[in-house]
Amino acid sequence: GEAAPPGSPWPLPQVWTKSTYPYLLDPKVFFITKLTNSKGEAAPPGSPWPLPQVWTKSTYPYLLDPKVFFITSNAENCTIVAEGLSRLSDEFNSIFKAIDDNKRHNSSLLSLRSIHLQIDSISDCNTIYPQNNDNEYYEIAIPFQSSINGRIRADTIWGAIRALETLSQLIYVNEDRELVVNATRITDWPRFSFRGVMLDSSRHFLPKNVILANLDAMSYNKFNVFHWHIVDDQSFPFESKIFPELTQKGAYSSRHVYTQTDIQEIIEYARYRGIRVIPEFDTPGHTQGFGKAFPQLLTTCYGDGDDKPFTAKLNKHAEAEILNPMQNYTYDFMKVFFREVRDLFRDQYVHLGMDEVYYDCWRSNPQVWQFMINHTFTELSQVEQYYTERMIDTIKDIGFKNIVWQDPIDNGVQLANDTLVMVWKERYRHPTSQNDSWKASVQRIVGQGYKVIVSACWYLNYISYGQDWEKYYRCDPTKSLADDSEKALVLGGEACMWGEYVDGTNLLARLWPRASAVAERLWSDPNHTNDIESAKFRLDQHRCRMLRRGIPAQPILNGFCGEYEWEMNANEI
Amino acid sequence: GEAAPPGSPWPLPQVWTKSTYPYLLDPKVFFITKLTNSKGEAAPPGSPWPLPQVWTKSTYPYLLDPKVFFITSNAENCTIVAEGLSRLSDEFNSIFKAIDDNKRHNSSLLSLRSIHLQIDSISDCNTIYPQNNDNEYYEIAIPFQSSINGRIRADTIWGAIRALETLSQLIYVNEDRELVVNATRITDWPRFSFRGVMLDSSRHFLPKNVILANLDAMSYNKFNVFHWHIVDDQSFPFESKIFPELTQKGAYSSRHVYTQTDIQEIIEYARYRGIRVIPEFDTPGHTQGFGKAFPQLLTTCYGDGDDKPFTAKLNKHAEAEILNPMQNYTYDFMKVFFREVRDLFRDQYVHLGMDEVYYDCWRSNPQVWQFMINHTFTELSQVEQYYTERMIDTIKDIGFKNIVWQDPIDNGVQLANDTLVMVWKERYRHPTSQNDSWKASVQRIVGQGYKVIVSACWYLNYISYGQDWEKYYRCDPTKSLADDSEKALVLGGEACMWGEYVDGTNLLARLWPRASAVAERLWSDPNHTNDIESAKFRLDQHRCRMLRRGIPAQPILNGFCGEYEWEMNANEI
Repeated sequence: GEAAPPGSPWPLPQVWTKSTYPYLLDPKVFFITKLTNSKGEAAPPGSPWPLPQVWTKSTYPYLLDPKVFFITSNAENCTIVAEGLSRLSDEFNSIFKAIDDNKRHNSSLLSLRSIHLQIDSISDCNTIYPQNNDNEYYEIAIPFQSSINGRIRADTIWGAIRALETLSQLIYVNEDRELVVNATRITDWPRFSFRGVMLDSSRHFLPKNVILANLDAMSYNKFNVFHWHIVDDQSFPFESKIFPELTQKGAYSSRHVYTQTDIQEIIEYARYRGIRVIPEFDTPGHTQGFGKAFPQLLTTCYGDGDDKPFTAKLNKHAEAEILNPMQNYTYDFMKVFFREVRDLFRDQYVHLGMDEVYYDCWRSNPQVWQFMINHTFTELSQVEQYYTERMIDTIKDIGFKNIVWQDPIDNGVQLANDTLVMVWKERYRHPTSQNDSWKASVQRIVGQGYKVIVSACWYLNYISYGQDWEKYYRCDPTKSLADDSEKALVLGGEACMWGEYVDGTNLLARLWPRASAVAERLWSDPNHTNDIESAKFRLDQHRCRMLRRGIPAQPILNGFCGEYEWEMNANEI
Repeated sequence: GEAAPPGSPWPLPQVWTKSTYPYLLDPKVFFITKLTNSKGEAAPPGSPWPLPQVWTKSTYPYLLDPKVFFITSNAENCTIVAEGLSRLSDEFNSIFKAIDDNKRHNSSLLSLRSIHLQIDSISDCNTIYPQNNDNEYYEIAIPFQSSINGRIRADTIWGAIRALETLSQLIYVNEDRELVVNATRITDWPRFSFRGVMLDSSRHFLPKNVILANLDAMSYNKFNVFHWHIVDDQSFPFESKIFPELTQKGAYSSRHVYTQTDIQEIIEYARYRGIRVIPEFDTPGHTQGFGKAFPQLLTTCYGDGDDKPFTAKLNKHAEAEILNPMQNYTYDFMKVFFREVRDLFRDQYVHLGMDEVYYDCWRSNPQVWQFMINHTFTELSQVEQYYTERMIDTIKDIGFKNIVWQDPIDNGVQLANDTLVMVWKERYRHPTSQNDSWKASVQRIVGQGYKVIVSACWYLNYISYGQDWEKYYRCDPTKSLADDSEKALVLGGEACMWGEYVDGTNLLARLWPRASAVAERLWSDPNHTNDIESAKFRLDQHRCRMLRRGIPAQPILNGFCGEYEWEMNANEI
């Protein structure tokens, strides 16, 4: 009962691996833009971003012919690997189908026959989630003429995900419009284990599809942490099933909500791309979002006469703000709340914020004075210390490790030493001595033995005209540190996109490829990535690659992306 | 053979104007965001942008019920008016269908019965195109209780288009989720007759759909000129049928081309929105795009020894650049070329550029010296003058009026006095005396009797963090002029979006609503639009309006747009 498949060749080819991909002519051809840098150099086609640690390039191209080429793996039963292979295959086919039919079958090039993907450790591969300090090492070998079989090896599935991303970027269309991959040998691993992108979904709600697309873009750049600043003063889009009032009163509208189903989908989508999802519930400041449903969580602020509760003071404090650190209710509420968070999210870490705890409201409140007397506190920072310790203990009880912004350390608060500290202040206003640059803050905080993540030089919400990616590219998180043992305490960094002026209309275009500059700084060897001119043309190529994959990454140079541009209809040919 | 239409009421209503609009529940409800300014004021719902000259507001709402309400006009045979009414009807229905069914029919409000649109001059209405100094005056009267019939009157179809836009912005959904329009009396006309947006399709190609969407956004803001900087050094996307080599060699690719059919579609689309399309073919500089196909048009540049033709000099000149002003070939070519342009475009004006004619290449060329001797010229500006005069004569022969950037005037070149001059330099470096601010340039050029268009303070490609729309809003093109007769020479201004870092990924979000600030400055009375705080909340409302109409205008404030956000799927409810 079988019919010959359409397009069956006669006589039968020696080796014919059949597939069912459709033969369409598609303008999204993976053509290289022909721009050159000031030295007249163009990025070589198939240049990966971020740059691998060790990359032995060759100009020897193998033809990739889907009738011949196949990938095997010892880990095909790991769904993450299977999905990764499937994404690679989609990429491969979308490039291939863009090539004129007659160019596909008349090549004089040697065809690459196969790549075998070997992963050493695959136990639990269907249940594990990416976590802190995962091994992302991998090797790719597409040997020069000695074999028509390539090989990828990784210690873990996370390394394998990175390898497949690199492989997808090595594939290109040459000037004869053949789909090729050059003979290549890559040994690669990340310089930093924490490579994050922070999004803020409180100032503006970010529709789920935008977050998913952003996870795609992150995976194209080997980012591995999505730091989700999910709620703040402005709105509370996180659905709590225990406290549904939080979104009922705190979300912008009933549609401006991430349901727990949405969040699970986002976490799984991220997991398939080797990306951790770390939520931030900022306390004790930035909690007006909690306060809309539970005003009793906030400290009552007083007017100048000290006898008028719930009195705002311009540029000082609101009517009520900052979690009330004095009452058990605050900690009891948060214990219940964070237990729900713990059950939903899969990462070992939660981000507790702790930034910008301004003391004006506490100072205005007579109960805080009494509380200080009762505890023999002389400084408001001791109240903050009290809150911080109780809160961190509470979180630890639940089974979360925690991350905080640098502020408690700046205020002299002592933290549990497994707390990760994010350095975000470009300049810290020191109360007594000179102001600290962020580099001095890194030095100071690392000097106290904390592990640090740097975001201070990567606030990508601050836009400016022109090639500002160069500024982000130049920033090195460990530059201020002499000592290897200090450097080891810098886990990495993250690109932050605060949401005051960003929503679904402009997030992706504004973030990419600017965040790609951060990605390469966090992944690659700084000694091999210190030349802006050669990076520029690789980055331009990478932005076109993202464009073709559905990310509206904005241009960094005059020019064009092969035969495809964003918003150009395929049927406009 | 007729069946009762579904949803037929019993007993029969007194007046039942049936329609076939679909009853869908749609989340794009036209809800007002509840933000308030620092004085606690929110923009009143249904606030138009730009602000009308005379607007007698009331809080008396009429219900708009599509079963009752209809619009009539004496100009229904004018296709531009019919299309305008159809767009209004789409807008009306898209808001209406978002309202809960049971809210539609249980209102205690009086229904507005009709609006009659009266246009005094409708002869040639199906053949005319908008042009310089069109009459855009209109009146809207939705009387307070005295009648259930409203009235719009305009002198011309262009005024009618503006009136319908205003009317569409007066409609809103009130807190009872009824579709209403307040009793209102508006008398309105533009302060300036030239209100432009400039796009650059050479540094990056802008897909046709992006240009059409931008024309929509322009019409929502009552802009009336699309200044199309269509070609430049980087690429030549304009299809010439006489010189097809121009795109074959000058376009980024065969897909990066505006065919003449595309251009006609764009011109017609603009015409239906009362928008002129003025192309710019920048000469004699910025002509590498011409030079790719016709290198003989350019002046050969020489090396330092003066004997090496086609020698580039870093930061001075290319191997060849600037149209060769000495040869008849240049003018003959341009005459043929601009005749084709004249036949395609419909506006009386063409923009000839004339900016940034750097003399270094001319200075390096011995033929230019000889040319100067032959003409007894002592200054290179006389060569520019020679070019300018011959070129403007050539263009005048063809039947085009012309616009130029301010540079020839700055260089002491005398122009025909019906030339419009665009002041674009924020600061003009005066060769002998103090530098001129753009305001001084306006004064100087107006003082020489030229008509002026100001873009110097509205280079929207220069982005910066935060609410930079306020800066654009504060800029007034005539601020430097004391005298009414001088002020009368300022025809208006335009928002420029140069394309170095802009393409289909980010153009619309980057331009809107920042260009809306320019729109209000060019349309409205400055005495009524000098308060940033009250403008802010009207502008926020307007950006949400644009969002709902399909323009990804970026946010200017924290918050949200009712129940709809960009990239939020309707089926995510």
